Amino acid sequence: MKVLIASSNLGKVKEIGEILKKIDKKVEILSLKDIFDEVPDIPENARTFTGNALAKANFLAKKSAGNWILADDSGLVVSALKGNPGVRSARYAGEIKDDKKNIEKLLGEMQEFVEEEQRSAHFCCAMVLVSPNTEKSFAAIGKCKGKIAFEEKGDGGFGYDPIFIPEGYDKTFGELSSSVKNKISHRAKALEILSDIFKDVLNGGEI
Amino acid sequence: MKVLIASSNLGKVKEIGEILKKIDKKVEILSLKDIFDEVPDIPENARTFTGNALAKANFLAKKSAGNWILADDSGLVVSALKGNPGVRSARYAGEIKDDKKNIEKLLGEMQEFVEEEQRSAHFCCAMVLVSPNTEKSFAAIGKCKGKIAFEEKGDGGFGYDPIFIPEGYDKTFGELSSSVKNKISHRAKALEILSDIFKDVLNGGEI
Repeated sequence: MKVLIASSNLGKVKEIGEILKKIDKKVEILSLKDIFDEVPDIPENARTFTGNALAKANFLAKKSAGNWILADDSGLVVSALKGNPGVRSARYAGEIKDDKKNIEKLLGEMQEFVEEEQRSAHFCCAMVLVSPNTEKSFAAIGKCKGKIAFEEKGDGGFGYDPIFIPEGYDKTFGELSSSVKNKISHRAKALEILSDIFKDVLNGGEI
Repeated sequence: MKVLIASSNLGKVKEIGEILKKIDKKVEILSLKDIFDEVPDIPENARTFTGNALAKANFLAKKSAGNWILADDSGLVVSALKGNPGVRSARYAGEIKDDKKNIEKLLGEMQEFVEEEQRSAHFCCAMVLVSPNTEKSFAAIGKCKGKIAFEEKGDGGFGYDPIFIPEGYDKTFGELSSSVKNKISHRAKALEILSDIFKDVLNGGEI
């Protein structure tokens, strides 16, 4: 079984690949660079994380016949900002992805919310597995609850990690080690759920 | 868009129907009783929750042409019992569904596991949406982690609810109000994912 991980983030491809290989050594992991000379522009215009992940997976399934596709979409959902930045997380401050500008914009909007309970937020990750003919789609969502810090801390991770403090910790994702993050993150949770589906697909189950 | 909810549990049909109607008022909800004079015996022999839900949905899609089908399957997965009762949750103690006998059997098997960490378990719900021609299937998986209580408590809910204590609470699903349960349950999580898929399907997204 060949699985194309629909991400241009090689760190993410490696992380997901390692988890899938633990389930079955016969899984062959492909990255976008194994399939495309030039990685195509993948549409992300749906209204939900799941919609975006499915759109990416279906787009790639058409372009790379014969492989299973694993795609994800994730973002930060801030209660006080009515769910923003949400599906627009990566491009919150403008059409070009810029973590620094996104964080600045968000911290600016959060200035008026000074009480602890006003700063609650969660990271959300939708992860989908789509069959080669796109007939079957399996979706799982993982969430990681926490709050928005008052300032950037730490330089680990990416995106909004330096301003997100997960529940049960007093450090941001930017400060916490990647091994801690990989245990409690939204992505880890979504992948854990999808792993069960993988086991069955790999074992020729009826699904 | 007509959606047949593949459940003979009218409470579940109503709950799911209300959520779908919030997404789009044009959705027309059908129950098995709207389609069949006599509700057919639906096969549930797959090895996984997703497999069972898909088997139900595909079976019904053939019998009721023209409707989208929504089906679910769920159960309790206990670590110390190597994943049992799992897909056999409803009929764990015998071929006739009997919540009381199932709970007795499970508590008996758990007697030797007295340490807190030996009692970890999770409820799992697979919810699927299948297109009228069964060309497309979307599966959403929700989990609710917790532990097995030492004795039955509360008479709310159904199935194993009186012996399942969800993470972050010290009461069983049998004791907790249905509004709390409906926020944190495996079924709520699966339905939340499927709702996102619905939004994009209904709005003519690319999925």
